[in-house]
Amino acid sequence: MEHVTKINDGLYMTTTKAPVNIAVIKYWGKTNEDLIIPANDSLSLTLSTEHLCATTTVALGKKFKEDKIWLNGKEEPVHSPRLQNCLHEIRKRSRYLHAHDLPECADWNIHMCSVNNFPTSAGLASSAAGYACLVQSLGTLFHIEGDLSGIARRGSGSACRSMYGGFVAWVKGTDPDGSDSVARQIAASVHWPQMRVIILVASDAKKDTSSSHGMARTMETSSLIQERVTRIVPQRMKDMTNAILNRDFNKFAEITMKESNQLHAVCLDSYPPIRYMTSASWKVVNLVHRYNQFCGTNKLAYSFDAGPNACLFLLEESLPEVLALLEYAFPTSTSKEDFFRGRPAVIGKMSQELSEYMAINPQRDAIKFAIITNVGHGPEPVDDPEAHLLDVHGYPK
Amino acid sequence: MEHVTKINDGLYMTTTKAPVNIAVIKYWGKTNEDLIIPANDSLSLTLSTEHLCATTTVALGKKFKEDKIWLNGKEEPVHSPRLQNCLHEIRKRSRYLHAHDLPECADWNIHMCSVNNFPTSAGLASSAAGYACLVQSLGTLFHIEGDLSGIARRGSGSACRSMYGGFVAWVKGTDPDGSDSVARQIAASVHWPQMRVIILVASDAKKDTSSSHGMARTMETSSLIQERVTRIVPQRMKDMTNAILNRDFNKFAEITMKESNQLHAVCLDSYPPIRYMTSASWKVVNLVHRYNQFCGTNKLAYSFDAGPNACLFLLEESLPEVLALLEYAFPTSTSKEDFFRGRPAVIGKMSQELSEYMAINPQRDAIKFAIITNVGHGPEPVDDPEAHLLDVHGYPK
Repeated sequence: MEHVTKINDGLYMTTTKAPVNIAVIKYWGKTNEDLIIPANDSLSLTLSTEHLCATTTVALGKKFKEDKIWLNGKEEPVHSPRLQNCLHEIRKRSRYLHAHDLPECADWNIHMCSVNNFPTSAGLASSAAGYACLVQSLGTLFHIEGDLSGIARRGSGSACRSMYGGFVAWVKGTDPDGSDSVARQIAASVHWPQMRVIILVASDAKKDTSSSHGMARTMETSSLIQERVTRIVPQRMKDMTNAILNRDFNKFAEITMKESNQLHAVCLDSYPPIRYMTSASWKVVNLVHRYNQFCGTNKLAYSFDAGPNACLFLLEESLPEVLALLEYAFPTSTSKEDFFRGRPAVIGKMSQELSEYMAINPQRDAIKFAIITNVGHGPEPVDDPEAHLLDVHGYPK
Repeated sequence: MEHVTKINDGLYMTTTKAPVNIAVIKYWGKTNEDLIIPANDSLSLTLSTEHLCATTTVALGKKFKEDKIWLNGKEEPVHSPRLQNCLHEIRKRSRYLHAHDLPECADWNIHMCSVNNFPTSAGLASSAAGYACLVQSLGTLFHIEGDLSGIARRGSGSACRSMYGGFVAWVKGTDPDGSDSVARQIAASVHWPQMRVIILVASDAKKDTSSSHGMARTMETSSLIQERVTRIVPQRMKDMTNAILNRDFNKFAEITMKESNQLHAVCLDSYPPIRYMTSASWKVVNLVHRYNQFCGTNKLAYSFDAGPNACLFLLEESLPEVLALLEYAFPTSTSKEDFFRGRPAVIGKMSQELSEYMAINPQRDAIKFAIITNVGHGPEPVDDPEAHLLDVHGYPK
């Protein structure tokens, strides 16, 4: 089978890399907790796996006594409902596809091993990349063709968007069983190659309400969420899709910021209220609006998820000036090399005029580090056998 | 004329005290900026003038060359549109009432002098008490009977609610000229005499978006505000009125907190977003919810307006325990006498169980001081001639 390494007659293995995605139309709220059917459509940018990715090796072994999973070097229980749902759906699809030609190995147990190349502290919804990677690997191993985003969705809602590269919509669908709640690509990354993304990792990582619990509380208690999911998001999906297709950065940025703010508004409207944005987050918000005011158009956008980290969007042409701004606003005690990670940090200069207009009050070490990246492609097989995370016995190397 | 001191044939004078009010159904957004017609009904508690009040003396002088006003000891321009609107409406009403019997003094100029007995730093919407006091004084001076809340509204929207004591509704009305956008009493303070109010004055008083600008921005840019004003508030007005009439503190507290949170949610949904709640505010929010969880019912409620200060509501029976909690959570570098102001601070003890459950991380000096007070009556004349703020020539003493 393509992309699958046959170690021996009793052991097959494949390895996949999968990307992180950042939503610009936010997913917040489910209409079905078990099936993970979202209350509204969402839209995200898939980030390059060059800087941020999950890598997963899955193996089918004749001698494996049971399914096993290792995450970031540590064995974890396999009986979590979400993982079981993914395994079940994959095996069901495999049996259906190979109904007349079921290979002997279809009922063997599976070993799974996954690592992220970014610290969990980055708060980057590692479960999205992780489940996308796992489901894509299993799809390759079982030779399943076609869309797998609906299966990735069962692992972690936003994982379904990591199944495609570029600009990706996750439609909530209409079928009560969730069968049409899947992701589809709006545009490939090459459609808008100038798009850049900077992730600002905040220092004050505190224990937050998990996004699952948070969105359940919002759905149960917010009196504004229904207006959002029934009226506001459908219009914004159209407007955002157009902004992307027209490469209209000003509009893209406006909707992105309004969406981020509304996510946190419905969190605040929940009971008890949920708060993710910290003082450092607000420093970023104010900086971005002030910069856009100076520019007379939106050159920069922020987005916050269920944590204090900021994600910034901008075009390549604005990168040097924005990096200069960030360097000034968030001075760091670590070296410049440790602070700016990812793509080369070509730091420009702030004009005297900009510097005076911004009137920044620098906040030392409010931001721990920044990752500069771009929009990239979806999950991809890693064909180098050396890259497998499992050894020839099917255990972590 | 009753409550008016005749200094001589050419100088009449009267003095009034008027209360502060705290909204529990929030006023946020106007449908007419000039007439100050609110986008939704609101409901407030009038606080005792014993601890917080404005005092205003107004005088009609035959020899006064022009209208003049002094606020907290400083002469201010009289041509502000809001002040002019109030003066104009009062004079119009006076002429109408005395059409067949216009006294000579009706066209004399007016001197006005107003002071607050609380620091502006308390961020307590001093304009509400101030305009209520001014309009009530002018009403007395011109011997105008009947409701004056519609005139106070022209000075500062929320001032109309300070025209009555106890629990007060401000109905938005339906007349495009605002004639039925007035306040009315839901219940007098004696209806629920156990109600207590604690104002926590936060230390980090920063320059905020003024409430006028903030609500205009929300009306223009928030996509959630219409749902709030057309559907959510009307239901909450009914529920809150019932909670007050039934003295149902648990429900009163729940709606109060949800209202406060929704005000700040629509601020966050504005573009650019508006933020009033600081880290100190959130300390209070978390403390209150945790305490209520411990109690198994809502014993305490918070409310935040366009600034970081918290207003707490509770019943007399909970006061000692809550003061102990506040003293523990917000240790102060000032003396206890300077910290707790207003009503006697009978500080109780926290049980070991409560203390363990709360797991408070104390924040020294996050709160500057606290004012303990209760629900009180509306504006009242001060008949002691010694209390006049203007001398026998009509100038500040």
